[in-house]
Amino acid sequence: MQNVYLSNYELDEALNIYLDKLGPLNKETEILNTWDANGRVTSKAIFAKLSSPHYNSSAMDGIASKSEKTFTASDRNHILLTEETDYIVVDTGDPIPKEFDCVIMVEDLIKVDETHVEIYQSAAPWQNIRPLGEDIVENQLIVPSNHKIRPVDIGALIAGGINVLEVYKKPSVGIIPTGTEIVEPGTELKVGDIIDFNSRTFSAQVSDWGGIPRRYNIVKDDYELIKQTVLKASEENDMVLINAGSSAGREDFTSSVISDIGELVIHGVAIKPGKPVMMGMINKKPIIGIPGYPVSAYFVMEEIAKPIIYSFQGLETGDKKIVEATLTRRCMSSLKYHEFVRVKLGYIGDKYVATPLTRGAGATMSLVNADGVLEIDQSIEGIEAGTKVKVRLLSPEEKVKNTLVCIGSHDPIIDIAADIMHSKNKKYFLSSSNVGSTGGLMALKTGETHMAPTHLLDMATGEYNASYLKKYVPGKKIALVKCVNRIQGFMVAKGNPKNINKFEDLSREDVKFVNRQRGSGTRLLLDYNLNKLNIDLNRINGYFREEFTHLAVAAAVEAGDADAGLGVYSAASLMGLDFVPVCNEEYDLAIPLEYLDSDIIKEFIETIKSTEFKEKLDELGGYDYSNAGTIILQGAD
Amino acid sequence: MQNVYLSNYELDEALNIYLDKLGPLNKETEILNTWDANGRVTSKAIFAKLSSPHYNSSAMDGIASKSEKTFTASDRNHILLTEETDYIVVDTGDPIPKEFDCVIMVEDLIKVDETHVEIYQSAAPWQNIRPLGEDIVENQLIVPSNHKIRPVDIGALIAGGINVLEVYKKPSVGIIPTGTEIVEPGTELKVGDIIDFNSRTFSAQVSDWGGIPRRYNIVKDDYELIKQTVLKASEENDMVLINAGSSAGREDFTSSVISDIGELVIHGVAIKPGKPVMMGMINKKPIIGIPGYPVSAYFVMEEIAKPIIYSFQGLETGDKKIVEATLTRRCMSSLKYHEFVRVKLGYIGDKYVATPLTRGAGATMSLVNADGVLEIDQSIEGIEAGTKVKVRLLSPEEKVKNTLVCIGSHDPIIDIAADIMHSKNKKYFLSSSNVGSTGGLMALKTGETHMAPTHLLDMATGEYNASYLKKYVPGKKIALVKCVNRIQGFMVAKGNPKNINKFEDLSREDVKFVNRQRGSGTRLLLDYNLNKLNIDLNRINGYFREEFTHLAVAAAVEAGDADAGLGVYSAASLMGLDFVPVCNEEYDLAIPLEYLDSDIIKEFIETIKSTEFKEKLDELGGYDYSNAGTIILQGAD
Repeated sequence: MQNVYLSNYELDEALNIYLDKLGPLNKETEILNTWDANGRVTSKAIFAKLSSPHYNSSAMDGIASKSEKTFTASDRNHILLTEETDYIVVDTGDPIPKEFDCVIMVEDLIKVDETHVEIYQSAAPWQNIRPLGEDIVENQLIVPSNHKIRPVDIGALIAGGINVLEVYKKPSVGIIPTGTEIVEPGTELKVGDIIDFNSRTFSAQVSDWGGIPRRYNIVKDDYELIKQTVLKASEENDMVLINAGSSAGREDFTSSVISDIGELVIHGVAIKPGKPVMMGMINKKPIIGIPGYPVSAYFVMEEIAKPIIYSFQGLETGDKKIVEATLTRRCMSSLKYHEFVRVKLGYIGDKYVATPLTRGAGATMSLVNADGVLEIDQSIEGIEAGTKVKVRLLSPEEKVKNTLVCIGSHDPIIDIAADIMHSKNKKYFLSSSNVGSTGGLMALKTGETHMAPTHLLDMATGEYNASYLKKYVPGKKIALVKCVNRIQGFMVAKGNPKNINKFEDLSREDVKFVNRQRGSGTRLLLDYNLNKLNIDLNRINGYFREEFTHLAVAAAVEAGDADAGLGVYSAASLMGLDFVPVCNEEYDLAIPLEYLDSDIIKEFIETIKSTEFKEKLDELGGYDYSNAGTIILQGAD
Repeated sequence: MQNVYLSNYELDEALNIYLDKLGPLNKETEILNTWDANGRVTSKAIFAKLSSPHYNSSAMDGIASKSEKTFTASDRNHILLTEETDYIVVDTGDPIPKEFDCVIMVEDLIKVDETHVEIYQSAAPWQNIRPLGEDIVENQLIVPSNHKIRPVDIGALIAGGINVLEVYKKPSVGIIPTGTEIVEPGTELKVGDIIDFNSRTFSAQVSDWGGIPRRYNIVKDDYELIKQTVLKASEENDMVLINAGSSAGREDFTSSVISDIGELVIHGVAIKPGKPVMMGMINKKPIIGIPGYPVSAYFVMEEIAKPIIYSFQGLETGDKKIVEATLTRRCMSSLKYHEFVRVKLGYIGDKYVATPLTRGAGATMSLVNADGVLEIDQSIEGIEAGTKVKVRLLSPEEKVKNTLVCIGSHDPIIDIAADIMHSKNKKYFLSSSNVGSTGGLMALKTGETHMAPTHLLDMATGEYNASYLKKYVPGKKIALVKCVNRIQGFMVAKGNPKNINKFEDLSREDVKFVNRQRGSGTRLLLDYNLNKLNIDLNRINGYFREEFTHLAVAAAVEAGDADAGLGVYSAASLMGLDFVPVCNEEYDLAIPLEYLDSDIIKEFIETIKSTEFKEKLDELGGYDYSNAGTIILQGAD
């Protein structure tokens, strides 16, 4: 095996070694028109070439006059002034000729005739004159070096006579996707193909960070081809990113290519995700091998590529906005890594709560859904629920504060309601997590959610939801708001080829089932029925295969991995499956009484009462919304 | 007078009336490739078209097998599996063919021969399989509508099979500079000319806010010309901004042009600066008249144009980051206006302090230097020093927290040191304000600065600085750090035409003087000498004309408005003036003892000890830096 990791440095150490080795980056500059330089970074301090205003001007409407002529003026001793010799008429902003040194307001003049006025007050020298340089004096510093130019700077620079200026060039960053299994988006997919999206994410990141991305075509796992492409890219760019080929798998050529044509400085850093990163250089140009898993790639881009791209422009990254949040679940971590955990943040009852998201390195949606990142130091084995932690914000704080947190049983209609609410009032957002009905009630208990959608059947009474509030959230007043009644049933392939029509069919030898996770309302519904019918769950092939959403169950059926799953009509319909109705269930919203009057909850309840929402439900089918938005329980505790 | 303000609404009220009148904006959409849509805003919610992964894949290196074949395996009952029929070899990521339903890790296999393995543990169905849709399930929501697309969204969208998507078009915004006195940057300036920089600032703002700026040529104050240009711009764009011509001055045509070809909805809002704003429409397209003063223009752009430009893209502005700060000076305000006051923020001893900047509407540098905006409600007449106020941040919080605040006597070398410090360590910034030496000591007393440069001559002893610390900052331990000795002298026109060589010359009839403000060290130096020589200050023509910096005094002499001013050599030299040395003075840094060990102060002291700094001083001339950075007083109290 050629691909042994060279190193296991801590991140900071690795970066220091690498940057030291790279030495000063070759930061080129260019001259731009000031008005084209928004967002660019000055390579030197800029001093004004002109004063602004560049002449003495009147600050009032009135006359420009000579103060020495006015010194003896008083109520008893009016002084007569003659136009041209003693004064001229000026408006605000008009220049003051050299022979005059004060401005007298029009209100303080007595008009005698067309060319004469009288005054009855003396005027001080420079009174009512806006002097040359009041705003900017020639040679004054306008902006320092390494300053990112903002629109207001452009105004001041032009006012100060700076029409061109020197800024750092945007670094050009070559991006090379590699891998024989990697295909372009839009390709007809075969099993085993992986769509290249990383290089597109990198391109957007590079642009956001002020660089110019230059993406190369996908290179197959062929040593020579990779070598030629890396060589070319290192000649054409200031920096190169090579994607994939950086894990220790059998088809990894990147590290030997870098060693071969340049120097591989670091291979392997003690971070998770992102360990297999490579930091190398060719002719002092940074060449970074980015892991193929998208989440690993993200953190390597953020932690390693970004500071270098900034550095080319004379900038520091920094400004990581940190908030303190309470961790809602225990979060274990390995002593082998400094770990980056994506979290959802909620602003619940005046404090932040952080809930860890899926930690898989392949979970692109965990990046889309993350509001922040919790870093767990290598020396820490885990953090207990309830601990206060520091979370680096990815979403704007204002957005997090205006986000309705919805954790519990998932139904596509929650996303639809969220979209309607946000379109109507752009201030509000909703974030939903699928943890099943009981998971949602637990989240109410730990205070990590505003709202928990739930559809829990009480096996004893056959009633829904209310009895569970007391059981799972004791001591807290929880209201129950009616959302919808919905049809649950068997999702089966088009035409129902295995003829699955009742729970008994699930235990047939020829039937493969796909289940929902423990704690979900749908799982309870299944268990309730199996129990009632005395069906041994061990006889159901696939009972222990768990998926987390209706859609995931439907996808398994659609792909032919299972013959049936239990779920809602809308999911079956979206996936083009047939649907065998089993029962009608009550999908309600459990909301702590204290939040019921908050603006955002009121907005959400209004949304599910709206015609627009109901029209969308009609399109999906399978929902009864007749009591949507009604408070059916004012607070069980 | 045609130009009476139509209205004096409060800002929110005015915006509501205007937006109501405009009705829904004509928000057009366009279809883009997903990889070209970074930063754009979705016009609809986007649901996945593909699952990701789109096939079941192995999560481990090992074999894909059939779980039913393994159920009886144990340590005592090894089971023999045959390649092709019972298993195939898979690596991580490889697809799992339909006939297999589990993966057994290579570590758990006993190799028998090339085509046979034994196992000694049963395998559960779906064990070690990464199921289809683990990351994204077909039909799952990826991003909602009105969502600004980020790099991570691009990855997830492409992974979910979305290669094109619908986004709002960027609104095109016409920008028309008007005014007969307005000239293009680079024009040979005549007295009375005003350089157009507003339209360039607007263009950069519009870009930053997601619009496409289209700037028109400057239009003279001619009713027909303005009318034709506004008509053209309103046809060619989604929105039009007309600059200047919106105050009630004599050359104001904008309001009548808007009324003539469209509707002028609002003319005048109770904000300061920004009152003369006009909000109109032509064919339901927004036409905004922006005041000519740059600071007025800034707030009208921020408060009125920005929300409309955002709205075209389905976005809300919002996310105004607010910090609480202690106001360092009393700040009066009129009951006639809701006022926007630019403030400098300092992070001094773990809390924010806010110091109001120049409030003139023409002060572009107050925008460059502002870290935040303090809004004073119309109903409030003023805010006392020491009050806690809410300040909207303009600078990143991290930057403010890493900024060394320097208030006191100004010398160009402070800016030079700041630039060297920041270039060496990009984390640190310095903000300097010129308030003169005693002003600086007062700022130490009120806790609004880390450092006060001072050069105060004790008239009794002839010594510098130390005795003033006790006088102005009683009860606080203040250290004194040596900066430079510098030469003060008369700045006079090239060739010294009025032959000014001594203080007595300043009282000559033919000499016009320009002074520094009260409280500045230079003013004290003048007074000390006039007093010693028994010169009546009333006999000095220009004694009461005050400027706030050495450069401003030099600029007045250079412009011929004065024959002499007292100041430092470097200012005279920068302005190409002659210089008559008068004395050598001690320019030191007063720093509270408690900050002396802070990283940023240490960094600054290192900077003024550096060779690079001293080389710059040599270039300027007139400085003795031999003891720069030495602590000459450990703390007087």
